[in-house]
Amino acid sequence: MKTLEWVDNKLKLIDQRKLPDTLEYIYCSNYKEVIVAIKNMTVRGAPAIGVSAAFGMALASINGENLDKVALEIKAARPTAVNLFWAVDRILASDDPLSEALKMYREDMDTNRAIGKYGAEIIDNGDTILTHCNAGALACVDYGTALGVIRAAYTQGKNINVICDETRPRGQGASLSVWEMQQENIPVKLIPDAASGFLMSQGLIDKVVIGADRIARGGVVNKVGSFMVALAAKHHNIPFYVAAPYSTFDNEISIFDTVIEQRDGDEVRYYGGARICPEGTEVINPAFDITPKELVTGIITEKGIIDPI
Amino acid sequence: MKTLEWVDNKLKLIDQRKLPDTLEYIYCSNYKEVIVAIKNMTVRGAPAIGVSAAFGMALASINGENLDKVALEIKAARPTAVNLFWAVDRILASDDPLSEALKMYREDMDTNRAIGKYGAEIIDNGDTILTHCNAGALACVDYGTALGVIRAAYTQGKNINVICDETRPRGQGASLSVWEMQQENIPVKLIPDAASGFLMSQGLIDKVVIGADRIARGGVVNKVGSFMVALAAKHHNIPFYVAAPYSTFDNEISIFDTVIEQRDGDEVRYYGGARICPEGTEVINPAFDITPKELVTGIITEKGIIDPI
Repeated sequence: MKTLEWVDNKLKLIDQRKLPDTLEYIYCSNYKEVIVAIKNMTVRGAPAIGVSAAFGMALASINGENLDKVALEIKAARPTAVNLFWAVDRILASDDPLSEALKMYREDMDTNRAIGKYGAEIIDNGDTILTHCNAGALACVDYGTALGVIRAAYTQGKNINVICDETRPRGQGASLSVWEMQQENIPVKLIPDAASGFLMSQGLIDKVVIGADRIARGGVVNKVGSFMVALAAKHHNIPFYVAAPYSTFDNEISIFDTVIEQRDGDEVRYYGGARICPEGTEVINPAFDITPKELVTGIITEKGIIDPI
Repeated sequence: MKTLEWVDNKLKLIDQRKLPDTLEYIYCSNYKEVIVAIKNMTVRGAPAIGVSAAFGMALASINGENLDKVALEIKAARPTAVNLFWAVDRILASDDPLSEALKMYREDMDTNRAIGKYGAEIIDNGDTILTHCNAGALACVDYGTALGVIRAAYTQGKNINVICDETRPRGQGASLSVWEMQQENIPVKLIPDAASGFLMSQGLIDKVVIGADRIARGGVVNKVGSFMVALAAKHHNIPFYVAAPYSTFDNEISIFDTVIEQRDGDEVRYYGGARICPEGTEVINPAFDITPKELVTGIITEKGIIDPI
């Protein structure tokens, strides 16, 4: 199963908003449809956004659009994930956008397997691993970064358990990560976001592995809530790893200068179609937060495990 | 508006499961109905559970039940809130259960106003105050503990803002605390549970005030997630206060010996009537967690602000 694929000159995407109950696909035949899919989170996860953006550029090229103009539009789809900028710039610099996008597609699969191989080294037999949000196959072309590490350890025969937190407001932990683990019979349990600290205090979590939307000087930007998990892990001396490809790195800036996307308050006001607060309640809904490097044990990349930058 | 009242020899309760959209009441005419209401969280919040349990004992006495036997049944309704045990034992030791329950009802209202008066002293003009779950009028007979502090500060004319986190799984922050603040036009915003750390890092929160289900040697038991908020507050040097009456104190035991209630996994699996994860997903759902005293700035009681014990 691929999260995204190039089929008949179209970008085929799993509609992740329909999971876990329905596995449906959408097809983008022009770059504007790709932008919509990124904005409304049909496709999400930093690496998957990057490769989708590359195919969006390829579609624009096939359709004879002005690539410099399209590049700016695609980059504006979501402001935080650095892979989006990396992918668009790489296509702009290439002579053959479609070939380059297909190359990035294959590279993403190789990268995740390399991350999995290095990451599995830090997973011990018997570990219970907490992950936040979804840095899985569904956040990439396939396999995943954080969940790729878990897949690799499980494939090596290690006896592991996974705990996914729900990841409100959009619930990617509950709907996507739990589902991915269940597909491969990896033992998994779901908890509310607020419960990971308590589980750590009870000795029920051995390691944390999450993904990243941007790694820059001083720390890591990832799904909102990562920072609070990292603080709880630090308090309990539990290793806290970030699994991410080098395309997530932004060496030029301080992480504290990252633009944190603010999303629609209805993501918080409604859940499963029902309103969970009084009508018209004011909401603050930051999509990401910043985990300072002091809280990060190591970053698992396709070239090995490194210190945060 | 009273969360609970004694009317025509019945215990009248707001059905908190219907809020914020519908203000409905239920009436308990025997102690078994009170137990059901406590278990299914028609009534919740440590002080409200305590006074409801006292009226449950009064109903049993009126109906000629064996009070020693009933006491054991009521105490088993929810294992964590110490007010439940305190209230039942106080009725057992009294000569006139109904008079004693009515006395406890009036005391709860006085207690909360005293907590509010002392607590308002630590709230400065311009403060933005984060609260978790609902330690409001709906957790007591009226007025509230943590929200009582906020009410008192607001009534003094202080310009304050309140941030409520959602408090999954049951969403009491979103459905109850936000609603209470809106009823009195106190400015309030809702955030996901995972976002408070980020807001603190941005300088958007000045103080935290929460309630408690049990205070014992070494710290505070309160709604799951309180501990992670406390860790984030400590990291940012933000004062973290607990507002609770002396009936919440259990001086005899270590807080780490508290029984933490595990609730039905469907509270996590479903939200607003919709399933948010694959069918049959395994869940861990602790109702409370333990905040060690090192993270608590002070405890606001009806006799003044004290250090944690």
